Amino acid sequence: MRTALDLAREVGYAKLSIEGIAARAGVGKHTVYRRWPSKGALFLDAMLSALQTELAYTDTGDIVDDLRKQMNAARELVGGPDFGPLYAALVGEAQHDPAIAEALYERWVEPITERTRIRLRAAQEQGQLSTEYDLDVIVALLYGPLYYRFLLIPGNYDAAFIDAVLQAAFAGLKP
Amino acid sequence: MRTALDLAREVGYAKLSIEGIAARAGVGKHTVYRRWPSKGALFLDAMLSALQTELAYTDTGDIVDDLRKQMNAARELVGGPDFGPLYAALVGEAQHDPAIAEALYERWVEPITERTRIRLRAAQEQGQLSTEYDLDVIVALLYGPLYYRFLLIPGNYDAAFIDAVLQAAFAGLKP
Repeated sequence: MRTALDLAREVGYAKLSIEGIAARAGVGKHTVYRRWPSKGALFLDAMLSALQTELAYTDTGDIVDDLRKQMNAARELVGGPDFGPLYAALVGEAQHDPAIAEALYERWVEPITERTRIRLRAAQEQGQLSTEYDLDVIVALLYGPLYYRFLLIPGNYDAAFIDAVLQAAFAGLKP
Repeated sequence: MRTALDLAREVGYAKLSIEGIAARAGVGKHTVYRRWPSKGALFLDAMLSALQTELAYTDTGDIVDDLRKQMNAARELVGGPDFGPLYAALVGEAQHDPAIAEALYERWVEPITERTRIRLRAAQEQGQLSTEYDLDVIVALLYGPLYYRFLLIPGNYDAAFIDAVLQAAFAGLKP
């Protein structure tokens, strides 16, 4: 898995191949194919293993602080210079490959969304978050702006952008 | 231009070609290439011409109503069954093709964002929108959730999702 991530960073997503990963790991390509049917599946697994440790939510009792911490970890992990171009390429491939789209959703987007829902529900119980909105609308309101910047606007967004999104989303756009 | 859009809808973005468009229009492919260097450029032009008429903002004096109307027009135009898959494929291609990414940003995302800024600025002057946030943060907060649903979550979003985003964004997530 580590080998796959290292190689992906070196050559980029487009040039990553199961053969290349097998060669680097010193195993036959069939050994790799038995576990991962495609490079997209393998890259998703590698991201998921990073997710387990690096994108967990803390519960300090302050939802905005905890979201800020997790959103910045996500920005550094999947939006940073190492993985950012790889992740963008994967999201790009999902737009014309239904199998990649399904795997991306079921193995990455939905599991991370479920973690977010759990933290948001706790915040509602702690009286820190409105109970008026569907949790998936809140997820889209918080993470949508990050994807929008990541996929459509040139240049990387920074911690100040995350601060501004949190401030506007929590306080609201009314004057 | 109409020919390009009709053909794109019939065959899909992946199979769309300058040659095919030229043949359908009954002109030589060089005639088409002189004006558009790539199918991405041609498709962007076709979208831009639709934008001129269909994605304009009205100013009724009610910013939420006017945003709702424009966001639903965008949902139907670029997220609907006709253009949705083509637009998603174009955003996907932008993730690994810098020339497409630049054209998408400069000729589509930025012009439509500028229209949105103008409407938002008027809303601030009318006392209907907080002046505390950067206009581009507001754009990301409103349109980011739509892109998030469009590119990452299976199934189409509906008018009720746009209503919920507007309600949450304007009222804020605080209890």
